[in-house]
Amino acid sequence: MTVKSMNDLFLHTLKDIYYAEKQIYKNLPKMGKSARSSDLKRAFEKHHEETGGHIERLETIFEQCGAAPRAVRCAAMDGILAEAKDVMAEIADGQVHDAGMLAAAQTVEHYEIARYGTLIAWADQLAMKDAIKLLLETLDEEKKTDQLLTRLAEANINQSAALS
Amino acid sequence: MTVKSMNDLFLHTLKDIYYAEKQIYKNLPKMGKSARSSDLKRAFEKHHEETGGHIERLETIFEQCGAAPRAVRCAAMDGILAEAKDVMAEIADGQVHDAGMLAAAQTVEHYEIARYGTLIAWADQLAMKDAIKLLLETLDEEKKTDQLLTRLAEANINQSAALS
Repeated sequence: MTVKSMNDLFLHTLKDIYYAEKQIYKNLPKMGKSARSSDLKRAFEKHHEETGGHIERLETIFEQCGAAPRAVRCAAMDGILAEAKDVMAEIADGQVHDAGMLAAAQTVEHYEIARYGTLIAWADQLAMKDAIKLLLETLDEEKKTDQLLTRLAEANINQSAALS
Repeated sequence: MTVKSMNDLFLHTLKDIYYAEKQIYKNLPKMGKSARSSDLKRAFEKHHEETGGHIERLETIFEQCGAAPRAVRCAAMDGILAEAKDVMAEIADGQVHDAGMLAAAQTVEHYEIARYGTLIAWADQLAMKDAIKLLLETLDEEKKTDQLLTRLAEANINQSAALS
């Protein structure tokens, strides 16, 4: 981390979320395959496609900053995705498995919501109008995904209650 | 992770957030000392005190579950706090330093908001009324802390603009 100015901090955090988005993009197909509910499968597939768009938007912002797209390892996202991998590998019961996957996915979304919120505030400070527009589009999709996951978690719970 | 039922998953996630809260409690005094703005210092001191209460509430819930309080390592929280440590060690400029600290603190809050939201939904499913009350109290404090951090981030940006 060589950060001396707000510009440096913005670029460093852009590299952090670029790494996070790329890891999410890589892992979502496995999460979709592992999900037991067809609604959850579809949610992961849709978000995989959206995440491809988030990566492209970040690459455009790197270009606007005059920097080559580069990722720096984000240990927080590695930790969150490791939890999703544990759930996939170790929970056999379908509804418990999906509950664990939904919980992991919601921590992913909240990490991203925090990061994009921060980047938007800094982009505003740095008068990066074009970047703000792109970051807001992604933030909106992350928030909608989190809301969808909340609805699926409630449906998973209701289904479980109906079976018990 | 030996998780077969929703009860197991609840308890496992309780251990995860118990670890996270204890790490946050341990790190907040250092973050308070490092903060350059007196408002940010006060926010970290206040949240340190609140976090002590969150840990006590979790210990009560462990008791309600008939389990001894136990922490399991949460790699996501370790990653988030490692970022805060990097900011403290490596950013000299006061406003850039505080901007980085605020960003790290907001990812901490969002991780907790996601976790407590999940635990409340599961506690509802498991008919753990007493636990829900305690978890809701903590969630409310985490959300208020996140809102305070957003206001401090905006103030930091405005101060920076006034100086430039």
